[in-house]
Amino acid sequence: MSVQIVLGSKSDLKVAEKATAVLKELGVSYRICIASAHRTPELVDRLVSEADAEVFIAIAGLSAALPGVIAARTGRPVIGVPVSGALNLDAILSVVQMPPGIPVAAVGLDRGENAALLAAQILSLKDESIAAGLEEYRQKLKDKVIRDSQEVDA
Amino acid sequence: MSVQIVLGSKSDLKVAEKATAVLKELGVSYRICIASAHRTPELVDRLVSEADAEVFIAIAGLSAALPGVIAARTGRPVIGVPVSGALNLDAILSVVQMPPGIPVAAVGLDRGENAALLAAQILSLKDESIAAGLEEYRQKLKDKVIRDSQEVDA
Amino acid sequence: MSVQIVLGSKSDLKVAEKATAVLKELGVSYRICIASAHRTPELVDRLVSEADAEVFIAIAGLSAALPGVIAARTGRPVIGVPVSGALNLDAILSVVQMPPGIPVAAVGLDRGENAALLAAQILSLKDESIAAGLEEYRQKLKDKVIRDSQEVDA
Amino acid sequence: MSVQIVLGSKSDLKVAEKATAVLKELGVSYRICIASAHRTPELVDRLVSEADAEVFIAIAGLSAALPGVIAARTGRPVIGVPVSGALNLDAILSVVQMPPGIPVAAVGLDRGENAALLAAQILSLKDESIAAGLEEYRQKLKDKVIRDSQEVDA
Amino acid sequence: MSVQIVLGSKSDLKVAEKATAVLKELGVSYRICIASAHRTPELVDRLVSEADAEVFIAIAGLSAALPGVIAARTGRPVIGVPVSGALNLDAILSVVQMPPGIPVAAVGLDRGENAALLAAQILSLKDESIAAGLEEYRQKLKDKVIRDSQEVDA
Amino acid sequence: MSVQIVLGSKSDLKVAEKATAVLKELGVSYRICIASAHRTPELVDRLVSEADAEVFIAIAGLSAALPGVIAARTGRPVIGVPVSGALNLDAILSVVQMPPGIPVAAVGLDRGENAALLAAQILSLKDESIAAGLEEYRQKLKDKVIRDSQEVDA
Amino acid sequence: MSVQIVLGSKSDLKVAEKATAVLKELGVSYRICIASAHRTPELVDRLVSEADAEVFIAIAGLSAALPGVIAARTGRPVIGVPVSGALNLDAILSVVQMPPGIPVAAVGLDRGENAALLAAQILSLKDESIAAGLEEYRQKLKDKVIRDSQEVDA
Amino acid sequence: MSVQIVLGSKSDLKVAEKATAVLKELGVSYRICIASAHRTPELVDRLVSEADAEVFIAIAGLSAALPGVIAARTGRPVIGVPVSGALNLDAILSVVQMPPGIPVAAVGLDRGENAALLAAQILSLKDESIAAGLEEYRQKLKDKVIRDSQEVDA
Repeated sequence: MSVQIVLGSKSDLKVAEKATAVLKELGVSYRICIASAHRTPELVDRLVSEADAEVFIAIAGLSAALPGVIAARTGRPVIGVPVSGALNLDAILSVVQMPPGIPVAAVGLDRGENAALLAAQILSLKDESIAAGLEEYRQKLKDKVIRDSQEVDA
Repeated sequence: MSVQIVLGSKSDLKVAEKATAVLKELGVSYRICIASAHRTPELVDRLVSEADAEVFIAIAGLSAALPGVIAARTGRPVIGVPVSGALNLDAILSVVQMPPGIPVAAVGLDRGENAALLAAQILSLKDESIAAGLEEYRQKLKDKVIRDSQEVDA
Repeated sequence: MSVQIVLGSKSDLKVAEKATAVLKELGVSYRICIASAHRTPELVDRLVSEADAEVFIAIAGLSAALPGVIAARTGRPVIGVPVSGALNLDAILSVVQMPPGIPVAAVGLDRGENAALLAAQILSLKDESIAAGLEEYRQKLKDKVIRDSQEVDA
Repeated sequence: MSVQIVLGSKSDLKVAEKATAVLKELGVSYRICIASAHRTPELVDRLVSEADAEVFIAIAGLSAALPGVIAARTGRPVIGVPVSGALNLDAILSVVQMPPGIPVAAVGLDRGENAALLAAQILSLKDESIAAGLEEYRQKLKDKVIRDSQEVDA
Repeated sequence: MSVQIVLGSKSDLKVAEKATAVLKELGVSYRICIASAHRTPELVDRLVSEADAEVFIAIAGLSAALPGVIAARTGRPVIGVPVSGALNLDAILSVVQMPPGIPVAAVGLDRGENAALLAAQILSLKDESIAAGLEEYRQKLKDKVIRDSQEVDA
Repeated sequence: MSVQIVLGSKSDLKVAEKATAVLKELGVSYRICIASAHRTPELVDRLVSEADAEVFIAIAGLSAALPGVIAARTGRPVIGVPVSGALNLDAILSVVQMPPGIPVAAVGLDRGENAALLAAQILSLKDESIAAGLEEYRQKLKDKVIRDSQEVDA
Repeated sequence: MSVQIVLGSKSDLKVAEKATAVLKELGVSYRICIASAHRTPELVDRLVSEADAEVFIAIAGLSAALPGVIAARTGRPVIGVPVSGALNLDAILSVVQMPPGIPVAAVGLDRGENAALLAAQILSLKDESIAAGLEEYRQKLKDKVIRDSQEVDA
Repeated sequence: MSVQIVLGSKSDLKVAEKATAVLKELGVSYRICIASAHRTPELVDRLVSEADAEVFIAIAGLSAALPGVIAARTGRPVIGVPVSGALNLDAILSVVQMPPGIPVAAVGLDRGENAALLAAQILSLKDESIAAGLEEYRQKLKDKVIRDSQEVDA
């Protein structure tokens, strides 16, 4: 397995599904589970030590400790996705403002798809088939912008 | 021992010293250690499981996961103190915005003394000698305000 | 009675009901009343001096002075719950940023259930039956996460 | 006496002195005292009930409950001055965001002079000598701008 | 006439109606008009110079210059009401953060009723009938809190 | 004259000097004066109606009404420069968040040089000599980046 | 053609339509296209080098790099319009806080109409017919305020 | 070469030096250059197309477009480091809030060392010697916490 996706709570599923849709499209293997840094800390510990993932994607809202807690227990790259709520800044700053020594790669609020793309970019450094898929994905984005542009300029 | 103080980093010591000064004055026993939720997660786990403290005070800045990570592993009350930095809101929101089920008792930015007073209030529910000390402490605060007021109104 | 819940206004009732549901489940006795720091200051004063509560939970929005005003008149632990509104930061900062000497234990925005759990943790230091209830409560949270995880990983 | 100035703490004195300088210049009588809403609530109550002031100026930082607590106990106009600190937004929002029914007249961060001018404007509605002083004060402000402008345009 | 209410735009009418309801109840005479600091600056100038009001209430959103622009042209007390929008902080800070020399009395976001009560408090300094009305108004607020409290404690 | 620079207060001079340095270098004629929207509104009115400037640059801090007040009285482009202070967001949002119908062209905090460059870009649409100067200015910026880059990569 | 409007994404169309409605009313020629600074950077480059526009209007949300990226490649004035989203401050600050040397003229959140008016003001410096149209536009705004005012004061 | 570090301006050098110190310690090859997204866009384009780096680290302040502009032109992972300034939130949000499709891996404010560690974690997926170095680095961090802890608990 290449990517382990971890949600802090079932309510983060919509953001996770943006990630899994991209990983499927790019043919990147993944597993998904729920493990709360605050409600099930032992589960997070066990998960990280047992997972044979090359990259972690951690998705959480509020005081979003999950990405940092995973990063504390693995040397693999950890991508953090802050989830929107009443404040938004709480999740963003909790994910981004990690102390020196333990990095988390933060993507934007609710940006599950970008977490998946970043994971794929990382994996593509040693797997050229993913690189090809990523290029195709980008080309489709460009084509869509061009089509949209022709439409509004008509 | 009654209170276990945990700092996320040695740089939080100035805030911790506000807490220890108050605990000493009130005769509340405590221990103090450094254990980072991100750099030494196993240390935090061991600390929490071994500590025989009745109340925890966790002091941390930036993405301040420490109070929540301790709260995730103990049923004892955990008081969180956000430490000031370039943003301040990152530490405050990380400490305050805990998810449902795992409370942290947040005090204000750099308010080590208030963390100690809150711990003492909690302990005083079953130890009347602490309650007496707290009352004295408050009276001194009041007396100081009254003296200050006489000075400015002179 | 163990816990006195005070709302700043009837509109805070939904947050209070999260607290009372938890206290009932844990078998912690409580009373609930409305007393505004700004509209009925004498009521707050009388309430605090007459209440035989061991812990206070104060729930308020906007410039949420209520927790601090109660803390100013009692030596008991006071838990403050900021209530969401157009800004959110006003209530959070009003509850958290107490001056040195008078602590409030702030929980997250609208986190009535966490206020109740924190109160129960405090009371459990001298009442073991509450500690047992809390442990059960936590176990249920964990079980739910595990069930949710199995569901999404299916 | 016309204006009662109340500081939450001696550290707010610099802001208060901006107010007293203006009141002296305009010949408005005032008294000044320190009374913390959190450390000396009874003092605030007694002060408000005994003061024969027509306008109150309350100066406080952090979770600045003082203006609201005074407004809760008097029908006189209360002017609130938020005092700067590590966050600033905490004091501003605590002073401004009063609930319906109990107004506070907020002025800007550290704006003691504006609190005094507003108090004088209010008192001038029935005391024409103050109105004349205010007009002079404004004229001096204008003259200074014009002189400054000539200097930079030279 | 005692109070001149000025709206920056017709969309601020809902906030203004909270003010007029209170002024009617207290028997305070007022007029209401729309005059934008940005779209009709001459109208604002003429309005201020012609109005025989003792107190102004200015209601505006976004970059809410209206209260300050009125305050720049009158020596009468000017109460500013920030109106909610996509940001809220823009209107609040524009109304509160006036430069030294020209005060505005800011009330909370959308707090038209508090603007009216503050105006009435100011006018009551020389008109005792308004003071009596204000006291009644407050008593009703208190009675409502007490009734609400009895209901929830039932 | 091409550009009229207006400062809200003499304390904004450092930001204005960044603008005048650029205008001089580009050979754009300008005048500079101080005129406060709040302390000298009549001066602002007279200035705007008498100035034969093609572009205005208005520089102000706090509740920075000056750019909007000038824009309200002229059909010429008005560039607004927010000036830094204790909050920064107050000035930025006051300058940017203009209501529909009356635009201000906001540049960044303390960015006097960018205001001058923007004014020059606008004037260059009908004066090619300014366009040439702007191109040279940009080339120097590029050259500096390239030199700096060679230095750090050495 | 006079004005080139560029949207970062099709979802910004509603804001762009506010701009095109104004440009049509004022008889200012324009073209509109979609070109993302992040998804189609080459398209942005080509667009800027090929467009014979005198003024650019760039409309984008989130980390709104588009206005700055266009400004980096043209000496023409670039007007930036931040588009609202979950945070709003991200788009506003990305558009406003340009580094020294490369100005963007920021207008308010979603203020497409103000971008168009600012573009028209700039173009009117050499085209008097636009100036006349702008004056009419302003007069209509004023008339509407006056009519609205008469309605509420009735 | 493995890592290409790009600074938006020479003033970001202090943050870059935290990154280069870590890369040197871990034996990861890198190059460093300055290339502004706004002042030298062609340089950024050329740099990205010519660099044979596997990972990019982009360091910038204010409206920090640089990481996103690089990410727009490469399929390699791009790590963005926001640099502190008067606001901080501008740089953080500009780096984090990338639109769907083009991810940037954001680290904390001024966290050059974490950018380097994240780059090393990514590269270690195919180079085990880096993984070993990273483990050593972490162990040193832990040892330091433990030594610090013994010191404060003495």
